[in-house]
Amino acid sequence: MSVTEMAKNLNNDIITHSQQLLSHIDSPDDLRRLSIDKLPQVCDEIRQFLISSLSDNPGHFASSMGAVELTVALHYVYNTPYDRIVWDVGHQAYGHKLLTGRRDKFDTNRKLGGLSGFPNPEESIYDTFTAGHASNSISAALGMSVASEMQHESPRRNVVAVIGDASIGGGLAFEGINNAANTPNNLLIILNDNDMSIDHNVGALNSYLGHITTSPEYNSVRYKVYKFLKRFHLISERNRGFILRFNNSLKSLLSHQQNIFEGLNIRYFGPFDGNDVHRVVRVLRDIKDMQGPRILHLRTVKGKGYEPAEKDPATWHAPGRFNADTGERVVDDNGSQPLKYQDVFGNTLVELAEQNDKIVGITAAMPSGTSMSIMQSVFPKRVFDVGISEGHAVTFAGGLAKDGMRPFCAIYSSFLQRAYDHIIHDVAIQRLPVTFCIDRAGIVGEDGVTHHGAFDLAYLRTIPNMIVASPRNENMLRNLMFTAQNKNHGPFAIRYPRGKGKVIQWRTPMIELPIGRGEKLSEGSDVAVLSLGPIAYEVSQAIAKAKEAGVSVAHYDMVYLKPIDDDIMAEVAQMDCPIITVEDGSVTGGLGAAVMEWLNEHGYKRIVTRVGIPDKFVAHGTVKQLYEQCGMNADAIYNKIVEVKDLKQ
Amino acid sequence: MSVTEMAKNLNNDIITHSQQLLSHIDSPDDLRRLSIDKLPQVCDEIRQFLISSLSDNPGHFASSMGAVELTVALHYVYNTPYDRIVWDVGHQAYGHKLLTGRRDKFDTNRKLGGLSGFPNPEESIYDTFTAGHASNSISAALGMSVASEMQHESPRRNVVAVIGDASIGGGLAFEGINNAANTPNNLLIILNDNDMSIDHNVGALNSYLGHITTSPEYNSVRYKVYKFLKRFHLISERNRGFILRFNNSLKSLLSHQQNIFEGLNIRYFGPFDGNDVHRVVRVLRDIKDMQGPRILHLRTVKGKGYEPAEKDPATWHAPGRFNADTGERVVDDNGSQPLKYQDVFGNTLVELAEQNDKIVGITAAMPSGTSMSIMQSVFPKRVFDVGISEGHAVTFAGGLAKDGMRPFCAIYSSFLQRAYDHIIHDVAIQRLPVTFCIDRAGIVGEDGVTHHGAFDLAYLRTIPNMIVASPRNENMLRNLMFTAQNKNHGPFAIRYPRGKGKVIQWRTPMIELPIGRGEKLSEGSDVAVLSLGPIAYEVSQAIAKAKEAGVSVAHYDMVYLKPIDDDIMAEVAQMDCPIITVEDGSVTGGLGAAVMEWLNEHGYKRIVTRVGIPDKFVAHGTVKQLYEQCGMNADAIYNKIVEVKDLKQ
Repeated sequence: MSVTEMAKNLNNDIITHSQQLLSHIDSPDDLRRLSIDKLPQVCDEIRQFLISSLSDNPGHFASSMGAVELTVALHYVYNTPYDRIVWDVGHQAYGHKLLTGRRDKFDTNRKLGGLSGFPNPEESIYDTFTAGHASNSISAALGMSVASEMQHESPRRNVVAVIGDASIGGGLAFEGINNAANTPNNLLIILNDNDMSIDHNVGALNSYLGHITTSPEYNSVRYKVYKFLKRFHLISERNRGFILRFNNSLKSLLSHQQNIFEGLNIRYFGPFDGNDVHRVVRVLRDIKDMQGPRILHLRTVKGKGYEPAEKDPATWHAPGRFNADTGERVVDDNGSQPLKYQDVFGNTLVELAEQNDKIVGITAAMPSGTSMSIMQSVFPKRVFDVGISEGHAVTFAGGLAKDGMRPFCAIYSSFLQRAYDHIIHDVAIQRLPVTFCIDRAGIVGEDGVTHHGAFDLAYLRTIPNMIVASPRNENMLRNLMFTAQNKNHGPFAIRYPRGKGKVIQWRTPMIELPIGRGEKLSEGSDVAVLSLGPIAYEVSQAIAKAKEAGVSVAHYDMVYLKPIDDDIMAEVAQMDCPIITVEDGSVTGGLGAAVMEWLNEHGYKRIVTRVGIPDKFVAHGTVKQLYEQCGMNADAIYNKIVEVKDLKQ
Repeated sequence: MSVTEMAKNLNNDIITHSQQLLSHIDSPDDLRRLSIDKLPQVCDEIRQFLISSLSDNPGHFASSMGAVELTVALHYVYNTPYDRIVWDVGHQAYGHKLLTGRRDKFDTNRKLGGLSGFPNPEESIYDTFTAGHASNSISAALGMSVASEMQHESPRRNVVAVIGDASIGGGLAFEGINNAANTPNNLLIILNDNDMSIDHNVGALNSYLGHITTSPEYNSVRYKVYKFLKRFHLISERNRGFILRFNNSLKSLLSHQQNIFEGLNIRYFGPFDGNDVHRVVRVLRDIKDMQGPRILHLRTVKGKGYEPAEKDPATWHAPGRFNADTGERVVDDNGSQPLKYQDVFGNTLVELAEQNDKIVGITAAMPSGTSMSIMQSVFPKRVFDVGISEGHAVTFAGGLAKDGMRPFCAIYSSFLQRAYDHIIHDVAIQRLPVTFCIDRAGIVGEDGVTHHGAFDLAYLRTIPNMIVASPRNENMLRNLMFTAQNKNHGPFAIRYPRGKGKVIQWRTPMIELPIGRGEKLSEGSDVAVLSLGPIAYEVSQAIAKAKEAGVSVAHYDMVYLKPIDDDIMAEVAQMDCPIITVEDGSVTGGLGAAVMEWLNEHGYKRIVTRVGIPDKFVAHGTVKQLYEQCGMNADAIYNKIVEVKDLKQ
């Protein structure tokens, strides 16, 4: 037995041993049958389970650790799944998965065919809404709450949105609150405030939350007043206005502080200790039957119950594998390995910023996720972490560019969808020199359906004035970044994948890559393959295999999707052979469509076969597995080459 | 001389006569040379000019009338264009255009080659940023303010965002405020509060603004304190925190009210009477040199100075032509004219809602613009006006649909860009039955570059699970709406244009239109034209002309862009003739691309020629003019037919 196997067995023993209660909870009904004094033990057991399981099969760690008491209390107090819990983002929902019949499958978390890393309605009736992109929970939960009222459901359905203090700073959350406060509904918003997004949190609302009154005097008086009114059935929709005014006065009298949420006509409770399960259960019971929208502010500790994570919650957001006993993370020795694309981006941006003092960096709550943190540490005043607000990030970049700066805006592909209008309206129309560094483009792997960057090629290509490029490798990423800032080319999108590239010597001198010029990588005459981005590696392998089978394949890296290379297109159009396009993006409207449009526009009748993400939502798995599933790996491309080579042209 | 000509001459006389000051203001420098006591007269003259001009050449009226004093005061106090004024949306910016050298061209407003109806940086250096889509001004202005600080510009550049009380409720504005309060900058946000969006305003923030303290006692004490501190140079960045705390305490003491903006660490001033030009000038001067972000809350009257508009500002938002003296609007006699598409939508929705009690309507601050107001008047509790928040509108619809309702979400095409991620993440992944009624799709005419609905076909087509359709006429719009709610087809987009259709008898019995089935409209063998939407009328005219010239053209209305009709495609693919696709949307990635993808996928080598909006941003003009400019009218289609008919297939 290897050391790893021994450790694993030991882990399993610990899990079994420590699951006296949890092992009998197959649904929230089982939880609700326990007496309240057992809940702390359930919380402990969930924590032990998470530590043990995630040390071996990595995932999001610290958020779920901090939300254990909240999760237990919610399922204890509310009648799930009839009552709805809507998790925002869902990094914190592992405990929820354990309590809702998925404990035995938890070792499949984030694996192909296994549990999704986020709440997923396809997976469980307890997962009420798609989660993954921040700030949607209030709007979705409001919809559910209103739907329940309109259908006169009985008993009344409770709907709870659980949102973190980073997500609540997003514009969508504000829009949800702004509407919720004005619509008849019984929505409960739980603000799970751990003062962190993935990285440390920013924004005025966040500062405000940090300073919100914690006056014990005020909270205690106020809480007693509510309980008193409730006991005598004095709390109803009719006298809601009165109570609110009463409380506002009370608050002013006692604390001389304003409360933003009550200013917006939402009853506010808190802040309470969200890691005290008895307290949370009591508060939830007290406010459960109240009418009208309410917000409950809980302070929790990200990583709670595991010392290394409490001390460094950013690192432990998704720590990878670790030794459960020592807290030592299993970090790959990166000595002879390529860097991640994001790190090549981050380091290169510093080099460019050293040369060009107009360059500024913008990230939307993802300094470490995008490696904007590298520039942040060198030029702290030239990097803006705007919080979870992709739309603002882009419009703000537009304003900076309009008055002379050269913003580099680093946002994940799937999150950039939030800023689509802002790219069009606030950047592209004025042809402003904003560089979009689009990380996590294409298949991202384990994060799954909400995180794949499938659509950016199609949705950016249709925007006039846009340049859209994707580097084949790390050196080319550097060159494209250099090119983007070297002249004013207008909006310039550079998309690159999650994870590591293939090049060890990434820090090569930077050169300008002419706009709209691709590269011929191999000569051939039987088939022409046009690819975009690092998927060129899969193509190269396929071509090598084809060569062995006696098929001669020309390979072009287009580099730029828009403008597309006229010379390469003309050359390929005149070759008398089938064309295959290969892209790590949706085939609907992407590179394949661009190639077809060019050929038709120029009067060439050729058959173009597209390889890429098919027209469906792709679930989670490793990138390798999903490439295989989507028919995008070397083998699939090879098969496609063989399949089309004899097509009559 | 006709009556109209007489009226026009009379108007011109009035304008000249009433322009004693205005006629000498060719730039804000001229304005700044006037003594302050002349400003009310300038305001009067601007109003007279606007009444006279807009009664003849219609545009946005009431917003600009309300903002006259603010506009004059801004250009009087600030050193424009060095100082930046960023107008939000820009409905209110006509006065600004008059003061910035565009008075003589104002009769070309919204006309082809003339002034744009919105601020437009291509038109004037005084128009600092693209406007048209709400809520972007704070983010853009923040970018400009930060750019100025970073470049150490001297003298310090003042940047002012002018945002309405409707726009400030948008998530983007909140994101901007949340970031502005935490970033070193000198941004001034002017909240131009007329308690209106285009229609009456909604949302909790708006209720809050309505109830914000107007205590004269508080305002007067507070204002004096600021002036005192300023006189003794006690206001600096260093003691900003102190002053803010001091003021908060003062406010609590005097008013027992909270202030949301100060909760977010933005100094708040107001509310003041924004139609008192002397007052506005004084306040602007007082707060101009302060450090840090500030918000100035002005109460203005939409339509101010023109009684009919003050009484009914919603109607007078964009009243069309009117008699300046009597206030009588020149309303077309619609007796024998077709309805607008939006009204067919609005009336049909009521019919469907009568039959299907799951149907609810959602509009984002556009009840009259989308004619959701028709259902609102019949079923007020089943329509949700969520304010300017397209993202929330869609996610909220997702929540409603998830729990059993059938939301119809009516949003303009170009504004729906704001909700792109929400369509993907909160509706399409779960395949929820939300019907998107996409108004103002394609070329919209006079509203110009920010308002054309050019991209929806391309950006929606790439989303898995989406159905994308466009009716050829009003009857078909009804049938598609019926189809969308008749079964659960998942997300269903129906896009239709601005303005009137061609059918008088629109209220025909509704039938289901099979998903993915188009219609053959005419037989032919020389050329096959595939069109989508009402542009079929242009095609029909072109085909009639071609017939006269002896060219036989087959015409198919695809009805559905996605899924595309396999039978029609197979039929067309087997015809031995050129194919033309015609769509009122961007040709990049739209219907043409979909047709090419199908043909290639099925192994057909055919030349497809695309007619549609070219890959550039299109300015303003009449729809007819812009169709001509884009080569999308009957003549252009006819020419294309003749051009391709002999292409070898």
